[in-house]
Amino acid sequence: MNLPFDYERSAIGDFGGTTPTTTGFDNARVVILPIPLDRTTSYVPGTRTGPHEILVASSHMELWDEETGTDVHSIGIFTMPEMEFPFATMDEVMREIRRVGTELAIRGKFAIVLGGEHSITPPLVEAVAANYPRLTVLQIDAHADLRDSYMGTPYNHACAMRRVLETARCTQVGIRSLSSEEALAVPTLATTIFYDWNMRRQTDWMDRVVETLGDDVYITIDCDGFDPAIMPAVGTPEPGGLGWYEMLGLLRRVIDARNVVACDIVELCPIPGNVSPNFLCAKLLYKILSYRFCRELSVPR
Amino acid sequence: MNLPFDYERSAIGDFGGTTPTTTGFDNARVVILPIPLDRTTSYVPGTRTGPHEILVASSHMELWDEETGTDVHSIGIFTMPEMEFPFATMDEVMREIRRVGTELAIRGKFAIVLGGEHSITPPLVEAVAANYPRLTVLQIDAHADLRDSYMGTPYNHACAMRRVLETARCTQVGIRSLSSEEALAVPTLATTIFYDWNMRRQTDWMDRVVETLGDDVYITIDCDGFDPAIMPAVGTPEPGGLGWYEMLGLLRRVIDARNVVACDIVELCPIPGNVSPNFLCAKLLYKILSYRFCRELSVPR
Amino acid sequence: MNLPFDYERSAIGDFGGTTPTTTGFDNARVVILPIPLDRTTSYVPGTRTGPHEILVASSHMELWDEETGTDVHSIGIFTMPEMEFPFATMDEVMREIRRVGTELAIRGKFAIVLGGEHSITPPLVEAVAANYPRLTVLQIDAHADLRDSYMGTPYNHACAMRRVLETARCTQVGIRSLSSEEALAVPTLATTIFYDWNMRRQTDWMDRVVETLGDDVYITIDCDGFDPAIMPAVGTPEPGGLGWYEMLGLLRRVIDARNVVACDIVELCPIPGNVSPNFLCAKLLYKILSYRFCRELSVPR
Amino acid sequence: MNLPFDYERSAIGDFGGTTPTTTGFDNARVVILPIPLDRTTSYVPGTRTGPHEILVASSHMELWDEETGTDVHSIGIFTMPEMEFPFATMDEVMREIRRVGTELAIRGKFAIVLGGEHSITPPLVEAVAANYPRLTVLQIDAHADLRDSYMGTPYNHACAMRRVLETARCTQVGIRSLSSEEALAVPTLATTIFYDWNMRRQTDWMDRVVETLGDDVYITIDCDGFDPAIMPAVGTPEPGGLGWYEMLGLLRRVIDARNVVACDIVELCPIPGNVSPNFLCAKLLYKILSYRFCRELSVPR
Amino acid sequence: MNLPFDYERSAIGDFGGTTPTTTGFDNARVVILPIPLDRTTSYVPGTRTGPHEILVASSHMELWDEETGTDVHSIGIFTMPEMEFPFATMDEVMREIRRVGTELAIRGKFAIVLGGEHSITPPLVEAVAANYPRLTVLQIDAHADLRDSYMGTPYNHACAMRRVLETARCTQVGIRSLSSEEALAVPTLATTIFYDWNMRRQTDWMDRVVETLGDDVYITIDCDGFDPAIMPAVGTPEPGGLGWYEMLGLLRRVIDARNVVACDIVELCPIPGNVSPNFLCAKLLYKILSYRFCRELSVPR
Amino acid sequence: MNLPFDYERSAIGDFGGTTPTTTGFDNARVVILPIPLDRTTSYVPGTRTGPHEILVASSHMELWDEETGTDVHSIGIFTMPEMEFPFATMDEVMREIRRVGTELAIRGKFAIVLGGEHSITPPLVEAVAANYPRLTVLQIDAHADLRDSYMGTPYNHACAMRRVLETARCTQVGIRSLSSEEALAVPTLATTIFYDWNMRRQTDWMDRVVETLGDDVYITIDCDGFDPAIMPAVGTPEPGGLGWYEMLGLLRRVIDARNVVACDIVELCPIPGNVSPNFLCAKLLYKILSYRFCRELSVPR
Repeated sequence: MNLPFDYERSAIGDFGGTTPTTTGFDNARVVILPIPLDRTTSYVPGTRTGPHEILVASSHMELWDEETGTDVHSIGIFTMPEMEFPFATMDEVMREIRRVGTELAIRGKFAIVLGGEHSITPPLVEAVAANYPRLTVLQIDAHADLRDSYMGTPYNHACAMRRVLETARCTQVGIRSLSSEEALAVPTLATTIFYDWNMRRQTDWMDRVVETLGDDVYITIDCDGFDPAIMPAVGTPEPGGLGWYEMLGLLRRVIDARNVVACDIVELCPIPGNVSPNFLCAKLLYKILSYRFCRELSVPR
Repeated sequence: MNLPFDYERSAIGDFGGTTPTTTGFDNARVVILPIPLDRTTSYVPGTRTGPHEILVASSHMELWDEETGTDVHSIGIFTMPEMEFPFATMDEVMREIRRVGTELAIRGKFAIVLGGEHSITPPLVEAVAANYPRLTVLQIDAHADLRDSYMGTPYNHACAMRRVLETARCTQVGIRSLSSEEALAVPTLATTIFYDWNMRRQTDWMDRVVETLGDDVYITIDCDGFDPAIMPAVGTPEPGGLGWYEMLGLLRRVIDARNVVACDIVELCPIPGNVSPNFLCAKLLYKILSYRFCRELSVPR
Repeated sequence: MNLPFDYERSAIGDFGGTTPTTTGFDNARVVILPIPLDRTTSYVPGTRTGPHEILVASSHMELWDEETGTDVHSIGIFTMPEMEFPFATMDEVMREIRRVGTELAIRGKFAIVLGGEHSITPPLVEAVAANYPRLTVLQIDAHADLRDSYMGTPYNHACAMRRVLETARCTQVGIRSLSSEEALAVPTLATTIFYDWNMRRQTDWMDRVVETLGDDVYITIDCDGFDPAIMPAVGTPEPGGLGWYEMLGLLRRVIDARNVVACDIVELCPIPGNVSPNFLCAKLLYKILSYRFCRELSVPR
Repeated sequence: MNLPFDYERSAIGDFGGTTPTTTGFDNARVVILPIPLDRTTSYVPGTRTGPHEILVASSHMELWDEETGTDVHSIGIFTMPEMEFPFATMDEVMREIRRVGTELAIRGKFAIVLGGEHSITPPLVEAVAANYPRLTVLQIDAHADLRDSYMGTPYNHACAMRRVLETARCTQVGIRSLSSEEALAVPTLATTIFYDWNMRRQTDWMDRVVETLGDDVYITIDCDGFDPAIMPAVGTPEPGGLGWYEMLGLLRRVIDARNVVACDIVELCPIPGNVSPNFLCAKLLYKILSYRFCRELSVPR
Repeated sequence: MNLPFDYERSAIGDFGGTTPTTTGFDNARVVILPIPLDRTTSYVPGTRTGPHEILVASSHMELWDEETGTDVHSIGIFTMPEMEFPFATMDEVMREIRRVGTELAIRGKFAIVLGGEHSITPPLVEAVAANYPRLTVLQIDAHADLRDSYMGTPYNHACAMRRVLETARCTQVGIRSLSSEEALAVPTLATTIFYDWNMRRQTDWMDRVVETLGDDVYITIDCDGFDPAIMPAVGTPEPGGLGWYEMLGLLRRVIDARNVVACDIVELCPIPGNVSPNFLCAKLLYKILSYRFCRELSVPR
Repeated sequence: MNLPFDYERSAIGDFGGTTPTTTGFDNARVVILPIPLDRTTSYVPGTRTGPHEILVASSHMELWDEETGTDVHSIGIFTMPEMEFPFATMDEVMREIRRVGTELAIRGKFAIVLGGEHSITPPLVEAVAANYPRLTVLQIDAHADLRDSYMGTPYNHACAMRRVLETARCTQVGIRSLSSEEALAVPTLATTIFYDWNMRRQTDWMDRVVETLGDDVYITIDCDGFDPAIMPAVGTPEPGGLGWYEMLGLLRRVIDARNVVACDIVELCPIPGNVSPNFLCAKLLYKILSYRFCRELSVPR
């Protein structure tokens, strides 16, 4: 934006708000893509405001990461405006998300997508898998999302991982809710499930998660994978789930051991008057970037 | 429900809650049909909980109406369970609503439908118009809802009245929001609009509304037709709109002068912690029934 | 409170907060008595925090009244601490309220009581009527509260005015909700009802209200007598009701024409995050005092 | 409900909402009894809406339990309508709860009661103890509830366990709030207390809880026994308390080792706009049923 | 923003959201300047999020104005990013606002400023008065804001109009709260006050307001000038105040009769979960622009 | 307060509410000082209501502490009214806080201060350090607060500990948010930081915290030092942080091993409708007193 005079401003809507350096799309190593899709979510509605609230929260965050000893913002982060969906059918919506995902992938951008409902993941995985044919997907979620169709459509968020399995193998972590029909289907599917109720019984469970993953990994984090204590702002808040440091420990281990090529954070459904969940998502996004790119920065750890 | 022992109960989910007499479907003169459809609404989500919250509120209402001097409950009111939509496409949803609406119409029930979003009105009007071929529709709303399509679909709530016009003539009251495209189309459509900003300039405006209506009338009330002062619980709360006694005055005049054959109350989007809007809808529904059926009761007015 | 050093303070819990002059009980002309009774209220709970929230709000109010041109605070206003009810039965609670009301009455204090539920009014009226045997009661309310008993008890708030009628004649204004049973009883009771739906049909309705009142008047204001537009914070918010200037107009007319000897403001049920209703009650209380005592102040109007 | 045409419905108010099989009272092995009693609760009000919100939440839950590998719904679950209390005194209320509890007990139903305030537990324990004379009661709660009377009545929720002790021995877990008076009385009472602040100091604390219990056990869970992190929706949210998997671990151990004959979940006080606590209660109820009845199902674990 | 591929986007943070034409600063006739200053406001905090919430709401508004028959958006509206205040003292803050206001004024922009607290008005009036030396200020507000200093500072929002009077004559409308000190000072100040309690006693009150104004007018609207029924989202919601059509009627009359050169809308303090007040402000802003610029558009009215 | 008749009251605003014994200032060993300062806090506003909400919550707390086996209330606790700040500059505010802190210190009172924002800590530390020249400060916080100035002022809460360091050495625990500029400055400052992400890696971390402390210790607890799961009511809720029993464990160890001479609890920013955080603070305050003074009570532990 060009103004013909000096002006102290803040940039609500850009990740990190007022930041020392401005990055254009071309120079950005990382692109944040907000997809506020919200068509089929049940129970508590509102995922459409999730991406916006994460970006608002991000401007209240410090940009230094004391764990890696870096300020990863300098890598170049570009925030896209929110995607719009002037389309009649979910078919068209899916095609459009795949197209935009592909545009980012072919330009070598590391995409972090902010949902919106979980149904956005399958087309994003398709876009990424074009470059990484042996991609595996790590899902952190309360729900298996393995229904073949729901409410008459294969695009419902309750079917997201069933659709993903058409493109890539999956590892599912934190699962604590599935239907009898899904439980029956699991043995026939190319997925490994770490159920929340017993996954911590062996202290090496994070290593075992890593072992199931191939070289190239797409990470999809449904906010309800977290413990509702720290993440009540989801449509169906299942008790149990990952704590903050459990999530970070798992993510760091995966990012250190594998080539993480893209990720999404979905299903945040902001609760008016409680900013904690929004802030947590902003911080989560930044921790992922710090883990992923700290080695590319010249700052010693 | 049969229980093998005495039991003092309340019936959440039935209009009026605990009531002196229970009515089965067959004996009911009035059928309340909750249709919590919520697929395409923009901005503030949540119309899917509207019908339920209206019914919860109704159990805290007195059943005597001091204006008509009647207790219209005795006419026989039956509350349907909530309609479910295990369908992929809006086409199927529309067909199903029309089918259920027709089932009620052919059995001579006076239907009061609780939405859900405004896109449920066109199939209901179709169902009613089969019996009343010269039906006119009275809409009370902030928005003209006259777009030909929106977000890629002709079934969006922003198109509801454009769809209704394919079946019946319309009179639109309280309108205070429309797009340039709709403004351009209005002169070509079989509709009479009473714009909120100037409709009260003549004291006989209610009479003029009645004059535009044919013998048989379907009434559709979008909650945002009310002043947001008393109805903040809507998706896009447009300032201006009808006060409580303005709404009642208009409804009574129409019901006294014409044959009102069915109606709907749509787009309530409950605000957690504020029951006023929910209670207002419950009372509105009961006032409509009191006006409509007070003459059929033996109690003198 | 004596402190051994200077200290700039605010007094949350005292009406008006930090005020230029402090009044002890003995010098006070007016006593504010908070009675947070909340035992039998139905639907939306929470009247027990009403008095406290009114007092908190009052500290954000200006003490000048531009209508009467006075600062009535100088008359001497003393705020009692909240009444406690370590009693098993409503009988004992009623006796205790009557006793305290009597203590104030015999000392010549003008009592303004903050509820709490409406069931506190009958014992207060009894206490006042001991001094004013021909007392009439002016009630402003959405509900007639004329049930003989409710939920098994004669002390339920739904019976408040039926109990009051055992002590004094009543005039009821703004009524828009009563049961068939109450409607049947009305003709047999010593009460005049101004129904909300038609009371404004004659422009002199306030004069007609005044005419029904005897020389000495107790005023009881149930918050739901107001339009829910400005007073959503009540248990059963009935649409319709009095606007702010309607209420003030009526109160001023009554206070100018009759001897108002005490009053109460009851059934405020604060909505977390919306201070408007609390503030309105604080202002209402102060307007009543300004109308009632402006003539006793030397400040010219 | 009989309707003369096909109708896709959801059943708000029935546990689990739309379920594949419908169970009548007679065939039900389990009866869910909602008792929304809310008369004497202090501080934050609202337990009366607790049972309803748990049932609404339950319809968004999956019916498969991945831990036991069962769908326990097939055992036959019947949801009673909400109990009403048209009674003047707590004496009558207690008598009525005991009567209904007895009706269920003599028909061999496994009752799960949803409160309402904790004062409903003593009459339920009395009803159950008629069949199981050596019953012990396991309470999970933040408060000892051992006052002999409070606010003038022996029926206050602060006295619930003192009343229960008149019928059965108790074990109290998670306790972290009691008065000096209660602390003094504890050594004289037939109760074993596991204080929250030190109960986890030995790793076998759950075994030690089990050892204190007799063969037949009634479980009463006050929602404030949970950590407020996952259960803020209570009247007095005491920091500390049980986590989700601690609660499940304890319940499973008790259910596997003893004969659990009935239970209640009380004092949920829903927070508008935050469904997590409601959902947790629905899931807790279903986990108890899964643990309790998984052995009776033919499905292999 | 330049992207190397097609992208359907929405622009949260720009007035009107996704709009058909994009306007750069240079071509804009109107500049919207968000100043989220929030340092000294008392009671309910939060005006700092006001401007952002108004802009978010504006994207859900139709751009056609049915009253003037225009789409004024085509005049060219540019939305500035939010102003930042990295300054120690209110002196510096005031200077910076005056500087930015002057930058807009000298470029001939029509500025609409979104506050933030009322203390931003004096430097804006100073900036505008440099071009219009005989400027008068029309204030619509509940509070006189005429204190000479408050809480130790002359820059408190309670002093805003006292500061403005150092630059320009004022007319104050809707006033219903002032201190004894302010009441005493009024006769000595160059201001005309229309008190809310009696300003409507003559039907020509709007004409009388216009008569007090000079040729060039700056309008400052404090949100609490509105009736709290439609505008509860303010720091101290005074009952009474202007309705929606009263406000519009007054604004249109002033804009038609005088040269309105700039305006501000201040003190919106958003209530989480209630978007009505935010939406009202967005619509108010657009109505002002429609009234002000409809004559400059070629579209016939 | 003297009343000329018996009166059962509760004392909202006094710690513990209705308590068996009343303590005057002179006899009090402990003084609770509420300082609702709220001038420079960013993001979510509202710390000014923190102290009041903590005191309201405290009246719903039991006064027995089961861990120490004492009722420490008997030591004499006096609650000051809220401090007011009729001052223009932060300089004056700081001077006033230091003066009041000194008045308490010279009278030998143990002060527990309730904020308000963190900027109140430096003058309090100065007041205490006058008596304890080798004082060290233990801070529990998410943020380092070590900026030299912020938003143009050295008094911003983001600079609180940088100011404290001008008076005393510090130990900072739970830190998980700091800027690059602060990270750079840390090695040059007289502070020891225990970063939240790795401080628990050694089981003796609490001992190591104690070792860093001198004989006399001032404790400052920023509410955001807690895990947002139990303390969402803060301005910038950083994920991670201390659990309830971690906090208590650390406090008890410090209080047992060192001479704790004063403390503050700051930055509570109440969320309307969620009392848990307020209650936690009340309990935290009482636990600190129980740990600190249990040895001075004659009751055996």
